[in-house]
Amino acid sequence: MALPIELDRLRVVLVGARNPLNIGAAARAMSNFGFLRLRVVNPYELAFREARSAMGAAELLASAEECNTVAEAVADCAMVVGTTSIQHRDLLHPIHRLDEGAALISQQMVSTPVALLFGSEKFGLSNDDLSHCHWLINIPTRDEHVSMNLGQAVAITLYELVRDSKTIEAPELPETATAGDVERVTTSLLEALSISGYATPATITATEEKVRRMVRRMNLSTRDAELWLGILRQILWKLRSGQNNSP
Amino acid sequence: MALPIELDRLRVVLVGARNPLNIGAAARAMSNFGFLRLRVVNPYELAFREARSAMGAAELLASAEECNTVAEAVADCAMVVGTTSIQHRDLLHPIHRLDEGAALISQQMVSTPVALLFGSEKFGLSNDDLSHCHWLINIPTRDEHVSMNLGQAVAITLYELVRDSKTIEAPELPETATAGDVERVTTSLLEALSISGYATPATITATEEKVRRMVRRMNLSTRDAELWLGILRQILWKLRSGQNNSP
Repeated sequence: MALPIELDRLRVVLVGARNPLNIGAAARAMSNFGFLRLRVVNPYELAFREARSAMGAAELLASAEECNTVAEAVADCAMVVGTTSIQHRDLLHPIHRLDEGAALISQQMVSTPVALLFGSEKFGLSNDDLSHCHWLINIPTRDEHVSMNLGQAVAITLYELVRDSKTIEAPELPETATAGDVERVTTSLLEALSISGYATPATITATEEKVRRMVRRMNLSTRDAELWLGILRQILWKLRSGQNNSP
Repeated sequence: MALPIELDRLRVVLVGARNPLNIGAAARAMSNFGFLRLRVVNPYELAFREARSAMGAAELLASAEECNTVAEAVADCAMVVGTTSIQHRDLLHPIHRLDEGAALISQQMVSTPVALLFGSEKFGLSNDDLSHCHWLINIPTRDEHVSMNLGQAVAITLYELVRDSKTIEAPELPETATAGDVERVTTSLLEALSISGYATPATITATEEKVRRMVRRMNLSTRDAELWLGILRQILWKLRSGQNNSP
């Protein structure tokens, strides 16, 4: 995945995070998706830079900026977006479902920096934190269990931001076997069925049709057709040698 | 968010997970998004049920099923999907980007159970684990840091599954065979190969993997799996009777 330059415009802001493991997990997800600018406001434990769960994101964590206030953390941003687990937290802020909100953030990042705020594990964003936000996003969870792990919420939100931004090459599909190959597999299989007594002279026509259709439904690749031909050749050889030994 | 009944058809399977915290995190994300059926294959620490990070998902964790093998964990599923952090791990499995893959899984869940496999934090899914999979999904991360935290990978994948859950139409497909049926076809075929001398003791392991993958690529319906079992039963009977007649 190539990194669009805009990703550098997002500031992920963790406000009052309590657990260094969660800060580390957030850093790791940021690194996975190419968002490298982390800001922490009043982390509960100052030792957060040593978070072990930041596997592969030590550099990102080391360059995280510590801020004393939310205002400081969002000062250079033209759009400030809060996250909430509650779907109707207040009437003061518009709330967008994550997929819609991410689209708005992506649009904004084309031209200016955007701050994305996550609250503490225990309390989320406070009313004071929210007062810095233009609007909120909500990850659609089930009503019985809305509260997400901080690192997972960060991961999902960032994933949604990059979800449509890139192109993985289409998987290379294996070459499809020719009709001739498919028919050779069919013929070999029918011969095995005939020798083994599965098809009797009375049923042979119905069996042939059934087996021919079944082999077509296998959608064989060239390689698998070869594999099957080898398998059936060996089985046929053995079936015939067994016959020769019969009384 | 209202829970579609189909969510109950997904089995999240953690294979060889090493860290109870990660199992707990996976359970929490499952609970957040309404997927309640967790299976663990050979967890590294048996104390996983006490994982503290499962906040709000204790019940889900308590009802997790422990399995000894991947085969056992996927036996009732018609589709088995692996996850990989590598975009081109092998040429043996089609790899879909998460958003495309999730759409395929959602379609399948309309009618039958689906298993979604996650490998261990350190090694991912082994070749043997992968041989049970029909295809793989990949979460698009940046090339410099592809390896995701297990709990975050589970969270993102499940999020993607419910992201569009309001708009799923049922395609009319023949009923897909369960993994148990598919494994029975595999076992019978392997037995025929063994008796016929196609697989020697020296090559048996490689052959097993090759054949297991090939049979999965056949995308058997329930009816075709039955047909194959009948065919192989007859061929095996004949092969064995030939052996008995040998000098």
